[in-house]
Amino acid sequence: METTSNFSITILGNSAAIPTKNSHLSSQVVVNHNNYYLIDCGEGTQLQLIRYKIKYHKIDNIFISHLHGDHFFGLIGLLSTYHLLGREKPLNIYGPPALKLLIEMQLKVVQTKLKYELLFHELDNDNYNPIFENKDISVYSFPLVHRVPTWGFKFEQKQKKLNIKKSFVELFNPSIEEILNIKNGENFVCKDGAIIPNNEITTPPQQPLSYAYCSDTRYDISIMKYIIDVSVLYHEATFDSSMQDKAHEKFHSTARDAANMAKNANATKLILGHFSARNKELTSLLAEACVIFENTIISEEGIEYLIS
Amino acid sequence: METTSNFSITILGNSAAIPTKNSHLSSQVVVNHNNYYLIDCGEGTQLQLIRYKIKYHKIDNIFISHLHGDHFFGLIGLLSTYHLLGREKPLNIYGPPALKLLIEMQLKVVQTKLKYELLFHELDNDNYNPIFENKDISVYSFPLVHRVPTWGFKFEQKQKKLNIKKSFVELFNPSIEEILNIKNGENFVCKDGAIIPNNEITTPPQQPLSYAYCSDTRYDISIMKYIIDVSVLYHEATFDSSMQDKAHEKFHSTARDAANMAKNANATKLILGHFSARNKELTSLLAEACVIFENTIISEEGIEYLIS
Repeated sequence: METTSNFSITILGNSAAIPTKNSHLSSQVVVNHNNYYLIDCGEGTQLQLIRYKIKYHKIDNIFISHLHGDHFFGLIGLLSTYHLLGREKPLNIYGPPALKLLIEMQLKVVQTKLKYELLFHELDNDNYNPIFENKDISVYSFPLVHRVPTWGFKFEQKQKKLNIKKSFVELFNPSIEEILNIKNGENFVCKDGAIIPNNEITTPPQQPLSYAYCSDTRYDISIMKYIIDVSVLYHEATFDSSMQDKAHEKFHSTARDAANMAKNANATKLILGHFSARNKELTSLLAEACVIFENTIISEEGIEYLIS
Repeated sequence: METTSNFSITILGNSAAIPTKNSHLSSQVVVNHNNYYLIDCGEGTQLQLIRYKIKYHKIDNIFISHLHGDHFFGLIGLLSTYHLLGREKPLNIYGPPALKLLIEMQLKVVQTKLKYELLFHELDNDNYNPIFENKDISVYSFPLVHRVPTWGFKFEQKQKKLNIKKSFVELFNPSIEEILNIKNGENFVCKDGAIIPNNEITTPPQQPLSYAYCSDTRYDISIMKYIIDVSVLYHEATFDSSMQDKAHEKFHSTARDAANMAKNANATKLILGHFSARNKELTSLLAEACVIFENTIISEEGIEYLIS
C-alpha cells in the first residue's frame, strides 16, 4: 500500500483477545512524512504488513502498549524476519519494562544474534516528555487504566513555520537567511530601510494535527488531559453498552465510553477498535457512539485513514 | 474442514523461515480415527486453523520439532486462545527441553494462569520408544540433523486384529469371547470338537499405515532407520539442487535429497515442504524429485492428504 497522505494510520488488526476468520489482533501503522511507526504487534502482524503491502522496512520505531499477548505476541516474529532479511539499521522499541527481558530470552533460546541493533525504551509514568521526536513529529506515552500497566500513545505534528507569500519573493528576492527569519516571524527590512510587517508577507502554517491511540483501557477521566483537542482518537470499544458492567470489571470500554471520551476531549474524529468476538456485527457499536459523538467510524483492516 | 479419512494430514504452512503473501510458516495437523495432532506451530497457526476450519479444540497433543521461531512462535498464541475460550482438558506438548521454560516465562509475564493443565514432555535421543500412544497409533520421535537439536516424528498405526468372515459368523454364531480369540489368531473349536483353522475363517487386517515428518534436516543416512517402509514421508526441501552446497551448509535439504531419502526408505509417497521464499515457483523442485522418486507431490496449504 502506497500511503497517499502526510499523516495517516492503517489498521492491521482490531480484534480483542482472540483472532477470528476476518479479524486480526491489535496492530496499526502510523505514517507521517514518509516515516513509518508501528503501534502494537499482535500475532500475525508481519503477515498483515505483507498482505496490505506496507513498506515495513521503513519502520524504525515500534510502540507496545502493554503485555497482553494480543498486543505483542507477533513482535518476536517480526524481529526475526527483519534479521533474516538482513536489516542493518537499528530498531527502537518502546514498551513496558519486562518486554526487553522477554524478547532477549526468546532470541537467546532460538540462538539468534540479531544483525541489527535493538534499542529498548522503557515506558514510565514519571513525566510527559516526548518518548520520540524528529523534525516533524513528537510521540508521547501516557498511562491508561487497565488490568496491567498500559500506555496510550499520542503522535503530535510539530508546529510548522510561517509560509511566505510568492508575490513577496518574486518582488523582493530575499536571501536564504532573510527567508528563514521571515518564516520565524521577523519583519523584512528593505534596502532603503523601510520595514514590511511580517503579517503582510506571510500566511499562517497548517494547524498541527495529532493522533491518539487508547487501547486497552477502562473509561477514566484521568486520561482526558493527555488527549484534549486531539485530531483523531482511536479508542477501544471492546463491548457495547449493554455490557457496561463487564467492560468496567475487565478494565475495558464500551463504544459509548469511547464516544464520551472523544466528545469530552474535543476530538475531531473517533475511530473505534479492539472489538470482542462476541460482537457479531458492529453497527450497534457505531450507533451508540454516534448518538454521543457523530464523527465516529468503525475501524476496518487494511484501510488507510487520513489524520485531518 | 471435516476430515474424511481415518488417517490424514492437512498442511497449514510450508514456508521456510519467513512467511510470504500466500505461504505460511510450518504447521500441520495429523488426524487419525478422529484424534487430532498438531506438528509444529509457526506464527499464525491459530489463524490457519480457523481459516481451514480445523476442529482445533480436538487437538490434545502438540509436537514441536525444534526451537527455530518459524516452527513454534505461534504456540504461545494458540495456548492463550485455548485459555480464553475456556479449555479445561489437559494439553500435551512434546518438544525440546527449553520450550517449557520459555512458555512458562511468557505466561508469567502476561500474568496468565491457564485454566487447563499443560503437560510438557521433553524430547531426547535416549531410546526409540513411543512418546505417545493410544489404541490406534504410536508416535515416535527421532533425531534429525540440523543446526540446533531437532526431532522428526513418526505416526504409526497399530497392527489391527484379524477380520472374521461374515459367512462364518452367520453359520456358527460364535460368542464374544470366541470372536476375540479368533481375531487374535486362534482356531475355532466347534461344539462337536471339530477344529476349524483360523486362516479359513479370517482375512488379514489392513496393513498399518505410517507417516513421518522430517523438517528441518540435512540429508543424512542416519535418519533412514527411523523411516524405513514409511507410507507417506513429509520431507523438507528448502532449496533445489542448484543450491546443494548452501543446503548442506545451512543444515537443510534439497528436493533431490528428499527424493533420495524417500527412495532409500522405500516410502510409498513423498510430500515436499518447507520451501525457501527464494523458490519463485516450485515445479523445478518437483521435477528434480520425481526423477528419483516418482510419487512425489508439492505440499499445498489447506489440502488434506490421505495417508494410504
